[in-house]
Amino acid sequence: MIVVLSGGVGGARLCAGLVQVLTPEEVLVVVNTGDDFDHWGLRICPDLDTVMYTLSRRVDESQGWGIAGDTWNALTSMGRLGGESWFRLGDHDLATHLKRTAGLAAGRSLSEVTRELFLAHGLAHPVVPVTDAPHRTQVQTDRGLLDFQDYFVRQRGEPPCLGVSFGDGEPPEPSKALAMAMKRDDIEAVLVCPSNPVLSIQPLLAVRGVREWLRARRFPVLAVSPFIGGTAVKGPAARIFSHLGLEPTVTGLCDWYGPLVDGWLVDPQDFGLPVPPGVSLRSHHIRLDTALRRREVAEALLAWLSDIRAGHAPVSFSSSFKG
Amino acid sequence: MIVVLSGGVGGARLCAGLVQVLTPEEVLVVVNTGDDFDHWGLRICPDLDTVMYTLSRRVDESQGWGIAGDTWNALTSMGRLGGESWFRLGDHDLATHLKRTAGLAAGRSLSEVTRELFLAHGLAHPVVPVTDAPHRTQVQTDRGLLDFQDYFVRQRGEPPCLGVSFGDGEPPEPSKALAMAMKRDDIEAVLVCPSNPVLSIQPLLAVRGVREWLRARRFPVLAVSPFIGGTAVKGPAARIFSHLGLEPTVTGLCDWYGPLVDGWLVDPQDFGLPVPPGVSLRSHHIRLDTALRRREVAEALLAWLSDIRAGHAPVSFSSSFKG
Repeated sequence: MIVVLSGGVGGARLCAGLVQVLTPEEVLVVVNTGDDFDHWGLRICPDLDTVMYTLSRRVDESQGWGIAGDTWNALTSMGRLGGESWFRLGDHDLATHLKRTAGLAAGRSLSEVTRELFLAHGLAHPVVPVTDAPHRTQVQTDRGLLDFQDYFVRQRGEPPCLGVSFGDGEPPEPSKALAMAMKRDDIEAVLVCPSNPVLSIQPLLAVRGVREWLRARRFPVLAVSPFIGGTAVKGPAARIFSHLGLEPTVTGLCDWYGPLVDGWLVDPQDFGLPVPPGVSLRSHHIRLDTALRRREVAEALLAWLSDIRAGHAPVSFSSSFKG
Repeated sequence: MIVVLSGGVGGARLCAGLVQVLTPEEVLVVVNTGDDFDHWGLRICPDLDTVMYTLSRRVDESQGWGIAGDTWNALTSMGRLGGESWFRLGDHDLATHLKRTAGLAAGRSLSEVTRELFLAHGLAHPVVPVTDAPHRTQVQTDRGLLDFQDYFVRQRGEPPCLGVSFGDGEPPEPSKALAMAMKRDDIEAVLVCPSNPVLSIQPLLAVRGVREWLRARRFPVLAVSPFIGGTAVKGPAARIFSHLGLEPTVTGLCDWYGPLVDGWLVDPQDFGLPVPPGVSLRSHHIRLDTALRRREVAEALLAWLSDIRAGHAPVSFSSSFKG
């Protein structure tokens, strides 16, 4: 089984390629819940929904999230009533949040409710939240610690991001499906999606046991770069990397992820960039803007894994960890 | 002060006339909450909302409820997700339910939340729920006891209504504004709107103290008939009256309400119908389909009250009660 670590838009698009070439039994998609929040009394799970809408082809491809052709009438009326209108919830989209919130209120777990929603969208591939517990990303900025959506949407990601944190408490437990996967001895690989390394992937790694599991691994971790030519394909990843003193390139990605990633799929123009010893690069287009390109990138990753298994690719993940 | 007892559509339309001729200080509109229910995890208050949308001229006049030009995208998507879609909630309308539900969840009373919603709609006249407590109408039918919306919407009011009830417990306490009104000694009149006598007005009378307050009154109770020529202006009132063995006329209304109503405003064609001694009729058009006609009916009621005060109209409410 291949475990995929996904955030929102970029992750969803890679997943849309992977589900074209992997059966539901061959993959587990683990999605960030650090962006989740309560709004209008509803539980909003932006990354889970972006994956769901992308896989079901309901997504508004031009913006990367939300439902194509959605309307904004509830939002308009909420604004008129003096309610909060800075977070854009579409009318079709509201059904998802209403159904999720009602399911949670009835005592079902986020994993269970997510499964129901994906099945209702005709999606059989297992997509699970990284945790069923609260796990809210907070962003350290020069304006203080901000809730994720306050930072990302209300303040449009403008305050410099100096890092993220996840409350003062203990790390949350992984969701049941992830916990079971972490106990399996037949994991073929972990794939890290081209989602924001700081805002989307770091929350996944902060869940209890995930870093330890990856450190002790006997499988390769391959990732798709979110950067091409020193800029992010989408979103604020390059700007955040700059704020953190990191290059917005695969070189900076290696600084950020350290030995957690064994190999990076990068755009051909980034293939010659310096990376630490023990980290492999493979050159391939990493544009994920069409169904065909998503499939091609997914196939490139699977081909790389096949080469690694056959001993034809120099990924030495086991030696990259001293402990 | 004049206290108005209102249900949904017919009540809302009379209120739309009354607020044209009475200041906010001169009136208190008390609205049925027996139709309220929870749906999609939201608190729905159909009669309060119909009054709010009618007074603010947002209402869909052709159907009498909901918001003109509303869309049904959340509903469509909810149906697609396997959620309940038998109760039609529009997208604009959802903002009301979301805001109400969030306010209640934050610990505010239904009265407080209702006041906020009406003010957000630019409505200054006080409109209050009859009670802040749960007070769910159940309908006795030959299919058993049905929740109100199950009977009225899902089963389209088709099962014969044999009566209504309100749970096994104690009657709920009146809302604060109603309780205060019931203590005042300067009530000029109670007006009973042309709402369904069984489904909409009876729940108001079932709230603790309301019947006793009306029985001991020193003010007239005037009502507008919901019937013209033996049929209901709108809704199932005539059919329900027939099931209960009552004439769908002002004669049947007097049988139903007994000495609780002193005078009925009836359509000219109903003016000669027999009513018990002590009950007055006044003839006037009671069509409420335009703003002008609503105002005219309101003015007719106020003129009648003025005649009663001046001793020109033979309403003898005090003698109509033996106890």
